[in-house]
Amino acid sequence: MQEGKRVKAISIGLLGLGTVGSGVVKIIKNHQDKLIHQVGCPVVIKKILVQDLHKDRPVEIETGLLTSNADEILRDKEIDVVIEVMGGVEETKDYLISALRQGKHVVTANKDLMALHGSELLTVASEHGCDLFYEASVAGGIPILRGLVDGLASDRITQMMGIVNGTTNYILTKMSDEGRSYDEVLKEAQDLGFAEADPTSDVEGLDAARKMTILATLGFSMHIDLDDVKVCGISSITEEDLRYGKQLGYTMKLIGYAHREGEKVEVSVAPTFLSNNHPLASVQNEYNAVYVYGEAVGETMFYGPGAGSLPTATAVVSDLVGVMKNLRLGVNGRSAVTPQYPKLLKDNEEQFSKYFLRIHVQDEVGVFADITAIFAKYGVSFEKILQLPIKKNETSEIVLVTHKASLTNYDKILLELYDLKAVKEVKSAYRVVRKSL
Amino acid sequence: MQEGKRVKAISIGLLGLGTVGSGVVKIIKNHQDKLIHQVGCPVVIKKILVQDLHKDRPVEIETGLLTSNADEILRDKEIDVVIEVMGGVEETKDYLISALRQGKHVVTANKDLMALHGSELLTVASEHGCDLFYEASVAGGIPILRGLVDGLASDRITQMMGIVNGTTNYILTKMSDEGRSYDEVLKEAQDLGFAEADPTSDVEGLDAARKMTILATLGFSMHIDLDDVKVCGISSITEEDLRYGKQLGYTMKLIGYAHREGEKVEVSVAPTFLSNNHPLASVQNEYNAVYVYGEAVGETMFYGPGAGSLPTATAVVSDLVGVMKNLRLGVNGRSAVTPQYPKLLKDNEEQFSKYFLRIHVQDEVGVFADITAIFAKYGVSFEKILQLPIKKNETSEIVLVTHKASLTNYDKILLELYDLKAVKEVKSAYRVVRKSL
Repeated sequence: MQEGKRVKAISIGLLGLGTVGSGVVKIIKNHQDKLIHQVGCPVVIKKILVQDLHKDRPVEIETGLLTSNADEILRDKEIDVVIEVMGGVEETKDYLISALRQGKHVVTANKDLMALHGSELLTVASEHGCDLFYEASVAGGIPILRGLVDGLASDRITQMMGIVNGTTNYILTKMSDEGRSYDEVLKEAQDLGFAEADPTSDVEGLDAARKMTILATLGFSMHIDLDDVKVCGISSITEEDLRYGKQLGYTMKLIGYAHREGEKVEVSVAPTFLSNNHPLASVQNEYNAVYVYGEAVGETMFYGPGAGSLPTATAVVSDLVGVMKNLRLGVNGRSAVTPQYPKLLKDNEEQFSKYFLRIHVQDEVGVFADITAIFAKYGVSFEKILQLPIKKNETSEIVLVTHKASLTNYDKILLELYDLKAVKEVKSAYRVVRKSL
Repeated sequence: MQEGKRVKAISIGLLGLGTVGSGVVKIIKNHQDKLIHQVGCPVVIKKILVQDLHKDRPVEIETGLLTSNADEILRDKEIDVVIEVMGGVEETKDYLISALRQGKHVVTANKDLMALHGSELLTVASEHGCDLFYEASVAGGIPILRGLVDGLASDRITQMMGIVNGTTNYILTKMSDEGRSYDEVLKEAQDLGFAEADPTSDVEGLDAARKMTILATLGFSMHIDLDDVKVCGISSITEEDLRYGKQLGYTMKLIGYAHREGEKVEVSVAPTFLSNNHPLASVQNEYNAVYVYGEAVGETMFYGPGAGSLPTATAVVSDLVGVMKNLRLGVNGRSAVTPQYPKLLKDNEEQFSKYFLRIHVQDEVGVFADITAIFAKYGVSFEKILQLPIKKNETSEIVLVTHKASLTNYDKILLELYDLKAVKEVKSAYRVVRKSL
């Protein structure tokens, strides 16, 4: 910042004033000194798009700042940067494309939008010399995207595992710590505001899948679509599963898993038993973490709050600082790097995992031999077997942890298990990840 | 990268070819495609400064690349970037100042140099329009400096706690897990190459103090000197201490602690009992982690390998990518931000902590009352007290964990304890940090 020279303020248009939007207003207001110190000029919020002009807000807003007409932001030539924290996909996408076409830089916290249309938006941004930053779209306050793009710039990332949904991690932590049922804990989470009234997107793994799409695209430098991510949620996990996990030294987490081998990748979201010594196993409650394995760096992990008004707003304003630094240097729109590799997905026979299986069988002679014969047929051996007391109705429970099996063989084994007359039900089946890779 | 246009390669001069230097050579060689994709031009190592031209090297090096004359790098006009991985302070500083004065950008992994002369070097870099990046100087492969500078750019950081020395964390992990003595584990660590033949700098906390100097300067935007850091090492920790810690639900770590309150800060390095639910408590063996608390973001943690050839080299080459991106954009030398605040250190009466104390006393009536009276006199109460069986020679052991006390009062209490006739020895005294802040 040159002294004695009056520097023009940067003008912001804010789309949305919910919890994250209010956080952005607060941080820009409270940290004006730091922002001026870092980028050399003041930051002013010029206009805020809201649905209801008269609603009570958790922050003090000057009258006249609010508008319900998006054009007052998108067509205002004085607005340099549009911050999008309103959510939604199609209409929001149109707004942002309109903003970029008019040379406005964009910061967004919108994972749905970036997972579905990130590639198109980044292209438009680049064509118009605009920055489009979206750190807040994955893992809220954790600067993971910067970590991947800048911090590990010189490394080849081969694996990313993320606890990227706070709601499900809260539910699984409570179920595990307190031995309570999924339904009971979900209800409590809803009462406490940790889960939505309609929790589908969280508990069925869709939210996590969107974030993994963004992470995998950046980390593997390969355009991954949401449809490429195999998704399984947590709604059918039972207290019994978690209890067996504990006996075996495992912790259950909803894990977004992205793995690269050679030129091919796989991306999935599924409930997973982690060995207790895995760095992700100790990530509790609503916290998020992303574990990254790079060929050179080895294991790293980024941990922090995955959501919340101020954490997410911190990531948004940090992106804004990035835009403003680029503005000062006159280099906007040149930091995005297009994917280096064409998309190549692993086939099922190239995807390997250990599995935990809990099976209810007719308690009769030879059942166990029949079951193990199926696994042997596909070359899958066992790491652990739990012998369990006989239950009512002449049913026994068998718990198995396999060594690595391909997804193809695993699917075939499941089918053949169901064909066995003595197998009443495969109660549950989960991926298992131990610390050693 | 524009097609059809031949782009000039970036020329590197490497100072040093030890473990990290060899890693840098390997990564630049193996990841040439990725580097070209990211920055649009090839990267060539033009010259490497070594002491012994004929020594065997762990990487294949073209003949003619090695030199024992620094001037062949520092005065070569074609070299754009100098990477310093030779270590040392005074001579190295002269080399780097010479390089910067000749317009060469610098990447260094040298914590000693940055802790002692970082401010001066950054000033010279800025005067000559050069980048000076030093991510590898703290916590090896963990991109923590970027996290602080960019990722948390908009937040106000109030606390940083770091496990920033791998050797001591390895020793403490082994002592705790295996109940072995400090001397025994140190010996083993030396045999395995995890500890130096002269381990002083690691085990006495000096190495950690240098890293905390760099972290605190960046995180608090305040110039902190190495002399401002209070340092205590791990060499007097005993197996008994760790055993008591376990009983109380604590894990012992060598913690670099940096805390800001209002405008004042404190920075220290000391063995610390962490409650087991603290994210840093589960960081094991030679791993490093930095826990950062920001007013808006709340808790975040960065975890990874703190040292090692390839992890450290990854950070170095990632910095190199940063320099090259700036070169392409023509904006080198403008990313460093000078400290925003004047240095203000907390007085002893402004530094608060909980403490663990283990005291040997004469086993006689009234001793316990005398001891607690001293604490009461300074307004310090207890969180936990361990009653212990009487030992030989009519000595009893008392273990106390206090509520928060100022450093002033803590020092006075220690003095008065020693004045008590019945107190034979204060066997150990450590800081205690619980998860709730």
